[in-house]
Amino acid sequence: MNRTCYRVFVLIVLVATTLIARAARAQDPLPSWNDTAAKKAIVDFVAKVTKEGSPDFVKPEDRIATFDNDGTMWVEQPIYTQVEFAMQRVPAAVKEHPELADNEVFKAILSRDREAIAKFTLGDIEKIVAVTHSGMTVEQFKQIVKDWLDRAEQPRFKKPYTQCIYQPMLELMQYLRASGFKTYIVTGGGQDFVRAFAQKTYGVPGDQVIGTAGKVKYQYKDGKAELIKLPEVLLIDDKTGKPEGINLVIGQRPIAAFGNSTGDQQMLEYTGAGSGARLMMLVHHDDAVREYAYGQDSKIGTFSNALMDEAKSKGWTVISMKDDWKTIFPWEK
Amino acid sequence: MNRTCYRVFVLIVLVATTLIARAARAQDPLPSWNDTAAKKAIVDFVAKVTKEGSPDFVKPEDRIATFDNDGTMWVEQPIYTQVEFAMQRVPAAVKEHPELADNEVFKAILSRDREAIAKFTLGDIEKIVAVTHSGMTVEQFKQIVKDWLDRAEQPRFKKPYTQCIYQPMLELMQYLRASGFKTYIVTGGGQDFVRAFAQKTYGVPGDQVIGTAGKVKYQYKDGKAELIKLPEVLLIDDKTGKPEGINLVIGQRPIAAFGNSTGDQQMLEYTGAGSGARLMMLVHHDDAVREYAYGQDSKIGTFSNALMDEAKSKGWTVISMKDDWKTIFPWEK
Repeated sequence: MNRTCYRVFVLIVLVATTLIARAARAQDPLPSWNDTAAKKAIVDFVAKVTKEGSPDFVKPEDRIATFDNDGTMWVEQPIYTQVEFAMQRVPAAVKEHPELADNEVFKAILSRDREAIAKFTLGDIEKIVAVTHSGMTVEQFKQIVKDWLDRAEQPRFKKPYTQCIYQPMLELMQYLRASGFKTYIVTGGGQDFVRAFAQKTYGVPGDQVIGTAGKVKYQYKDGKAELIKLPEVLLIDDKTGKPEGINLVIGQRPIAAFGNSTGDQQMLEYTGAGSGARLMMLVHHDDAVREYAYGQDSKIGTFSNALMDEAKSKGWTVISMKDDWKTIFPWEK
Repeated sequence: MNRTCYRVFVLIVLVATTLIARAARAQDPLPSWNDTAAKKAIVDFVAKVTKEGSPDFVKPEDRIATFDNDGTMWVEQPIYTQVEFAMQRVPAAVKEHPELADNEVFKAILSRDREAIAKFTLGDIEKIVAVTHSGMTVEQFKQIVKDWLDRAEQPRFKKPYTQCIYQPMLELMQYLRASGFKTYIVTGGGQDFVRAFAQKTYGVPGDQVIGTAGKVKYQYKDGKAELIKLPEVLLIDDKTGKPEGINLVIGQRPIAAFGNSTGDQQMLEYTGAGSGARLMMLVHHDDAVREYAYGQDSKIGTFSNALMDEAKSKGWTVISMKDDWKTIFPWEK
């Protein structure tokens, strides 16, 4: 072979290799996942339940998958996004209810007393959420959330919260939908809060968002019919509340469930206890370099040792963000 | 034309006419409706909201239609089907809770004391429902309902209750779905009760059934995860509870709503108060010959004069079963 001929040959090989690699990537529904056991568990499960004639075949109407949101679909550190939103809404709420300015909890937020804020109890946070999430119509509230999400930034990544989502989980959701699944968000966070961005961010419509829900009050005057948000809780969609919320809204046991903390334990148990092929996975935050590393001792997104033991004994897949995910965020692509 | 030739000609005309009529029927999505204003209101509405480029065009994801069940989709006289079910479940419930045998309400049912039963208050009926609808898993309850529906008969028509459905309303539901709508049942009846037959009877899946819901309790033992029905109410999906339930489960305002009684008033107001093309309809039971005739003074399915006035003033369509429906039940076809 002469030199020119050799060069042409090398060029052809290079182009062909690139094209083949690109085609392989295009075919891979989970390009942000490394080729580890976690990815294999997903692909094997989907192959089984979608193969007609297979003993594990599941009819499309029974292909229900449920996803936790905070820590499973998007970043929950250093604080749940919705709690940050509620705290930033406090000045506006105090303007409407001046008597709150004398309350220790609201005083701490207004004066940005970090030490006092760090000591807030769950009851304090519930009070803040109740006050900042009520008194307006459901539509007005969703607009307030949308406006806030358009300008707020996650403090570490300096990106909008709706970009601080996990690319591998988004691919998993899309892959399941392309395989005939219905994908639901089942969140301990507020249902109306998550509905404000779930369609645009995850492609999940409002009727597939199950969350902690406040009571609303129907009001009809001058031909206008509105639902006003009340500062009272109807259902808490966390822990045992997750299977209960799933039953209320879906009325059917999921065949796949994804979470990351003790709040998701019962949802995974409920999913796993059904008959036929099942897929239960827990995202483990073990990558302090690219995201955060936390578990047993974290107040937010607690992944207890007991949960880890249960996952091992039941064969649930624990996803290591460090080892199983090639990329974490959409902007890394 | 000689006689043979004339006969052939008549035959051809007859066959052609039959074929043309059959083709016209095949094209008509609402063959059980007479060609009156009610049918025209439906067809015009669907044409408007599905025509791309039209000012009234509605994107498929926003095409939400909600249907009441009792009296709108199936017969509710002489008593709500679910109340009949609950009363027939009383002997089994008393076997499990022998102390109930001393209670006046349960005594009346056990001894078939028609006079006492006729005097039952809403509180009495709620007590019967609470006792007969709790203490089992959600799946067990649905199976009990299915088994009962398989053998119970509507007393006047001597047919299973799931056949005592309104053929015109079924066609309307199917027509809307074929036009890209999601069709929901929004019932004052029990959510689990209606979910037991909605898919088979109406083609409506469980996650599109909104109803009065009891609380459930998550229970996990020996690897089995179950939701046990409790004798407590979580939400009453009637009157103002209908828009509230719609918001909880769908998170979106419907563009079409169908009911038949004062329990549906708020659902229709809520639907009608949105912007863009809307369709609100009320089934009026005015056909004692083919079904039942009742309204203002009926304890079951009350259609008050105030509701009739509101319907007229707001332009809601009142469906006359007598004049607008060619056939009422599926078996008449």
